[in-house]
Amino acid sequence: MSKDGEFSTRQNGSEPRPSRASVTRLSLYLRRLESLLQEGITTVSSGQLGESLGVTDAQVRKDLAHLGTHGHPGIGYDAPELVPAIRRTLGIDRDWPTALVGVGNLARALLRYHGFLDRGFRIVALFDADPAKVGQFVDGLEVHPLERMGPVIATTGAELGILAVPSEASQSVADALVAAGVRGLLNFAPCVLRLPSHVSVVSVDLTVQLEQLAFLVHLGSTG
Amino acid sequence: MSKDGEFSTRQNGSEPRPSRASVTRLSLYLRRLESLLQEGITTVSSGQLGESLGVTDAQVRKDLAHLGTHGHPGIGYDAPELVPAIRRTLGIDRDWPTALVGVGNLARALLRYHGFLDRGFRIVALFDADPAKVGQFVDGLEVHPLERMGPVIATTGAELGILAVPSEASQSVADALVAAGVRGLLNFAPCVLRLPSHVSVVSVDLTVQLEQLAFLVHLGSTG
Repeated sequence: MSKDGEFSTRQNGSEPRPSRASVTRLSLYLRRLESLLQEGITTVSSGQLGESLGVTDAQVRKDLAHLGTHGHPGIGYDAPELVPAIRRTLGIDRDWPTALVGVGNLARALLRYHGFLDRGFRIVALFDADPAKVGQFVDGLEVHPLERMGPVIATTGAELGILAVPSEASQSVADALVAAGVRGLLNFAPCVLRLPSHVSVVSVDLTVQLEQLAFLVHLGSTG
Repeated sequence: MSKDGEFSTRQNGSEPRPSRASVTRLSLYLRRLESLLQEGITTVSSGQLGESLGVTDAQVRKDLAHLGTHGHPGIGYDAPELVPAIRRTLGIDRDWPTALVGVGNLARALLRYHGFLDRGFRIVALFDADPAKVGQFVDGLEVHPLERMGPVIATTGAELGILAVPSEASQSVADALVAAGVRGLLNFAPCVLRLPSHVSVVSVDLTVQLEQLAFLVHLGSTG
């Protein structure tokens, strides 16, 4: 996938792949469309869709054309048609069984975060290195020791892993998850993981986000 | 700040401002430099700095030149000199008193996250809408009702706010924080906030991150 350009082309010459920025926008359109559907609104213009997200209608049309959806001129897009098309493109028209490693406060917050389950991210296995936590049940799931990762991942079919462990543990936990067959990792530790190329990683470094915020506020008061 | 270009120029014609991507890299260099210093390493090349982050040495040199730091040819950069220069550019060579709204599991995870305090993000005030939580102490801080936001923010001097509240509450809580004088918001709710232009927002939508991950894994198995 291209890091810089808006779109890149698949090597086999079929549909172009959306960029990461475009994937983020598709997630946000999906959320907006679902809340419009809840309000009983089934037809939506590119302007309406973009407005609340701060995206131009031209960009909305470009992103959606990419799904093979072009809308009806003068009428708009059909929300009940668009929702499954976006879910299909994002790969969330299916369940993603997910393992969670490190059962602290962050893990508890994630377990109770309905947004994950609503989008098919089902947490199916919990692991922790702390013997005091192993064997406990959190939200109906047993906490397993790290040593049991192989068999538990195999039984539960977890394909994604969430790392909510301290930085110093994250590389070894990531290696263990990958060895157990996990193909994608969401990493909350502020460190860079070295992984085989078939494994995807998305990092959430909350300090980096706060630093960006501080930088923006700092600029606002000095610039 | 430019959204697309690597650098944009300040209107007053002084130093160019780093882009958001460059700010993220500066945060990561800073983390790397601090861990090198802990190991007693005080001189570092652009290659060493970039390697573990997957950044080319040319990009590292470009990012750092931007701080007015050019390194010593054949020797490298002086880490004890670079660390404060990066902190100054990011605006984290000072404390950022921060208010946190919504005292659930996520808030508890953030309160115990040492990374925040280490970088000067000091949580100084807690708020919650739930009368059962108001008056409780969490990690030594009293939970205040939303109605007390004005005076508590004024007393504590909080300049940043972290929103760990449900989506439907986030706009009104954001408005209240801004009315109380907060100038930057870190928003964990999956929604877009409408705020005056002098207020900066950085959003962390964990579902969007997981969707990006699902998309990457999905592409890996179909592309």
